[in-house]
Amino acid sequence: MKGGKKYIHFITGNIHKFNEVSEIFNKSNLNQKYKLFHSNLEPIEIQADNLRDVAVFKIKSVKNKLNESCFVEDAGFFVDEPLNGFPGVYSAYVHKTIGNEGILKLIGEESKTCAHFESVIALYFKPINEIKIFKGEVSGKIAKKMRGNHGFGFDPIFLPDTFPDKTFSEISIEIKNKISHRSQAFNKLEDFLKQNL
Amino acid sequence: MKGGKKYIHFITGNIHKFNEVSEIFNKSNLNQKYKLFHSNLEPIEIQADNLRDVAVFKIKSVKNKLNESCFVEDAGFFVDEPLNGFPGVYSAYVHKTIGNEGILKLIGEESKTCAHFESVIALYFKPINEIKIFKGEVSGKIAKKMRGNHGFGFDPIFLPDTFPDKTFSEISIEIKNKISHRSQAFNKLEDFLKQNL
Repeated sequence: MKGGKKYIHFITGNIHKFNEVSEIFNKSNLNQKYKLFHSNLEPIEIQADNLRDVAVFKIKSVKNKLNESCFVEDAGFFVDEPLNGFPGVYSAYVHKTIGNEGILKLIGEESKTCAHFESVIALYFKPINEIKIFKGEVSGKIAKKMRGNHGFGFDPIFLPDTFPDKTFSEISIEIKNKISHRSQAFNKLEDFLKQNL
Repeated sequence: MKGGKKYIHFITGNIHKFNEVSEIFNKSNLNQKYKLFHSNLEPIEIQADNLRDVAVFKIKSVKNKLNESCFVEDAGFFVDEPLNGFPGVYSAYVHKTIGNEGILKLIGEESKTCAHFESVIALYFKPINEIKIFKGEVSGKIAKKMRGNHGFGFDPIFLPDTFPDKTFSEISIEIKNKISHRSQAFNKLEDFLKQNL
């Protein structure tokens, strides 16, 4: 749209994610140049060892239907110790079935834990007809029990290294949006879009 | 092949599965009419709520590459109580990361358990250019600890209702191949192939 805003579509079935991203988007000056849309298109979600492969396959499976710039974001929660990265790519399914309680049971009395949240954005950028990848990661440990009211998913049991006494659910949304894996990935997307206006 | 054996391809990356199926195949008289091949083609494996969707997508993603009759088999282990069907479609990944020990930890002291193994075969049958589905299921409970030397995957913790004192790993392979989810599905495949020689 010459002189107007460019359209960019965030393809996700998760309204929590869209709201989180929409907030990040609106706080930058990107919203003067781009209009962010929520797309309900259903991309093909493959089983894979890593989020990047899942995200790239997803965006390839839908980009031709929109024929405009669009992106997907995939996030995962990895308990590197003592669970070998579980639940990783399948975090959503694991949360739905065994939940935070399940993760805590699996860890049991293990005192040494090491975990991270990871976010991968795959952007199809129409002006150059290319797929670009942006990653964000936040490291931390696992709490002994669920704590806090904010957030969703595995937030109530994750203690980020930057605030080691608080779970992601005890941190205000404002602060979480500054340090989270998702915001890091979106900041990189933001930088890319600004440099390619 | 007129007068000779027809070719049929089992597409799987799991040699255990191929061996199990090959044995079933060889014991029937199907091996006089069909020659079973192991194919290393890599089908697209999607994330889905059920095995049928995974298997159908898989066979559709490769059938045109072979242009002969071919099938995939997907199996899952579902702890219906108390784990809401976990690990289900993602059994392979869950076994690789948290294993049987993980499942036992999740169940903890829960005395009432209910589980099943499920197998879904998706066959692309060239003579009629159609995809056919064959299912098998075996119900049981979860053992208090891992037991037995045979089998693989979650066999060491599964007590089938037909032999409630033995895990799948304590039952001889010969007997397991008579009662297993996989053999039930393959018996149905066998019946179909015999009726459509």
